Amino acid sequence: TKSFKVVLIPGDGIGPEVVAQAVRVLNVIDSSSPEIRLQLESHDFGGIAIDNHGDPLPDSTLKACKEADAVLLGAVGGPKWGVGKVRPEQGLLKLRKELGLYANIRPASFASDSLLANSPLKESVAKGVDFVCVRELIGGLYFGERKEQGSEPQPEAAWDTMIYSVEEVQRITRVAAQIALTTTPPMAVHSIDKANVLASSRLWRKVVTETITKEYPTLQLDHQLVDSAAMILVSNPRKLNGVIVTENMFGDILSDEASVIPGSLGLLPSASLAGAPVVSDAKDFKPCFGLYEPIHGSAPDIAGQGIANPIGTILSVALMLRYSFGLEKQAKAIEEAVRKALDSKEQGGLELRTKDLGGNVRTEEIGEQVVNIL
Amino acid sequence: TKSFKVVLIPGDGIGPEVVAQAVRVLNVIDSSSPEIRLQLESHDFGGIAIDNHGDPLPDSTLKACKEADAVLLGAVGGPKWGVGKVRPEQGLLKLRKELGLYANIRPASFASDSLLANSPLKESVAKGVDFVCVRELIGGLYFGERKEQGSEPQPEAAWDTMIYSVEEVQRITRVAAQIALTTTPPMAVHSIDKANVLASSRLWRKVVTETITKEYPTLQLDHQLVDSAAMILVSNPRKLNGVIVTENMFGDILSDEASVIPGSLGLLPSASLAGAPVVSDAKDFKPCFGLYEPIHGSAPDIAGQGIANPIGTILSVALMLRYSFGLEKQAKAIEEAVRKALDSKEQGGLELRTKDLGGNVRTEEIGEQVVNIL
Ligand SMILES: CC(C)[C@H](C(=O)O)[C@@H](O)C(=O)O
Ligand SMILES: CC(C)[C@H](C(=O)O)[C@@H](O)C(=O)O
Repeated sequence: TKSFKVVLIPGDGIGPEVVAQAVRVLNVIDSSSPEIRLQLESHDFGGIAIDNHGDPLPDSTLKACKEADAVLLGAVGGPKWGVGKVRPEQGLLKLRKELGLYANIRPASFASDSLLANSPLKESVAKGVDFVCVRELIGGLYFGERKEQGSEPQPEAAWDTMIYSVEEVQRITRVAAQIALTTTPPMAVHSIDKANVLASSRLWRKVVTETITKEYPTLQLDHQLVDSAAMILVSNPRKLNGVIVTENMFGDILSDEASVIPGSLGLLPSASLAGAPVVSDAKDFKPCFGLYEPIHGSAPDIAGQGIANPIGTILSVALMLRYSFGLEKQAKAIEEAVRKALDSKEQGGLELRTKDLGGNVRTEEIGEQVVNIL
Repeated sequence: TKSFKVVLIPGDGIGPEVVAQAVRVLNVIDSSSPEIRLQLESHDFGGIAIDNHGDPLPDSTLKACKEADAVLLGAVGGPKWGVGKVRPEQGLLKLRKELGLYANIRPASFASDSLLANSPLKESVAKGVDFVCVRELIGGLYFGERKEQGSEPQPEAAWDTMIYSVEEVQRITRVAAQIALTTTPPMAVHSIDKANVLASSRLWRKVVTETITKEYPTLQLDHQLVDSAAMILVSNPRKLNGVIVTENMFGDILSDEASVIPGSLGLLPSASLAGAPVVSDAKDFKPCFGLYEPIHGSAPDIAGQGIANPIGTILSVALMLRYSFGLEKQAKAIEEAVRKALDSKEQGGLELRTKDLGGNVRTEEIGEQVVNIL
């Protein structure tokens, strides 16, 4: 029996509500999987940590995360802390950097075809969209040297640096490749850059090409310019089916753009990993430290009402089992249960719809039903 | 009678075909507007200039552009020059910088409601989309200091600098404000940045706010983060109706993303200006130097077949009349003629559809009909 420590950081707004339902799912997995034992503990992070400790990322929370096998995050931020000197997102960026979470993984696909009607895209355009965005998370413009307006030299100017090293691009390429290998046949890899203008993108394109060619010669690889990718995601998104790999700032923009295709942000999970995952149930599995969270925000407007959609958080638990614990079977079971909960009645599902999907099913009932199906 | 010199740079691929139709429109305006006299001359630029002069932007072309009142560009580039050391886009970037074209204007709206069916967005989402992207065009990551991989120091790294000065942001804000004032009531201004992470974005947000507050106090202004804007453009684009103003790299991505909403790139015009336009037919008009071009590329796959859509180029001529020549009435007439050509038969239009819109009307016939309607 392997023992895993999971740190919960529910955060602000609807964070605690959605995490509560994910915890129910974790508990079911714990009690039905004799090969593992889960140990959960909760810590403050984000706005609530500013209130309680004057710091969005208190040392005690950071320490607990560093000692954990995986972290489950709800959501952080809210108008209360939006304008202060100490802001929740500073905690988020520090947490990513301190934990070495260099790879952000965001699948975007339809958990159930019955959700096509909720997409802003025409159903014929959206149908069959199925990709995973792999975003470099602790490099580029986010963490390069910068200068604020008002400081010397050039007090009238401000700048940020988009910087990448060969090694940083190699490791994120390996993550993309490993993700591509999780399906049979493997997914195509689409690398996105702006190599016709930027030096850092020329390095990016060269290193991605070399790494795939040398280490993963069977994978299909193509390159797109970021402006063109932004168009294709809307006009013909299936063309990018597979793994989309890109640098931090482009990934921030494109993964958010992609995330609205499936109809509700409330449905989508994410993983931020400190290594390249080797997905398997078997002995060759290597656990990868990760932070898991739904992609939606803290939604202060609906917090406390019990109407938030917990599916993104529940699917984040599936990713945790897959990447950090080597429980591929259980991960699939959760994904199947979610599909069943969402599928239309005609399809033999429960057709559960929270408010974001135009229904009035409550947060708790989703958790309840997913647990029942499991 | 005012005399205006227009330099034509048809460029590569379908460029010459679409420019030819726009020239017909220019000729009609010339002969029907006694207050002006147009003088047209053609120059090499892009791939064809690499072939003929070994330089995508020959000195003679640059000189002619500098002496002109406006420039009309078709499209540049193609597989023939894509991988060489001297690439067409270097000519484009140099031309923008040399001519001081700091403001790129790209309207995105439905020239005719009958085109809603061509949008990748659901008709209910796309209907009524009507915005103008104003992109800063000669600053930021495109023109900041950069270092290629392989050079000292840090041969293993490459970087680019996103840099803005107060003055650069002031002047692009004024362009956005002037565009906002071209409608009654004025349009809302949406400024896009990443102020929660980037120093250059914090400068951007501060200067945009100060400039609008001081110089255009009646305009409505809001700020969006670039990731959030990328989502809204797909999920609820009408929320950004009005003027969207942003820095060079974000503008490259967002204006391309926005451009697929109206259903075909072939429909959309652009203007790149060297000043803030004062739109008017009257005496207070101040001519603004500009380069006008359709937003589509050179489409080498359909070049020479006479099937390209010339509407983006024809509408670019309308923008030229508006911003560079003060011929607002004639600009509107061209826009009206295009609408008539595109409107469905039920709407009383000609319902002309080139291949990109699912029809088989030829490039020349569109030009012919627009000229007839005029
Ligand atoms: C809150 C912000 C700093 C963050 C980012 O830009 O990375 C967010 O947009 C995200 O994508 O997780
Ligand atoms: C060709 C390229 C350098 C150019 C840009 O990025 O500015 C193009 O994408 C554009 O938007 O006009």
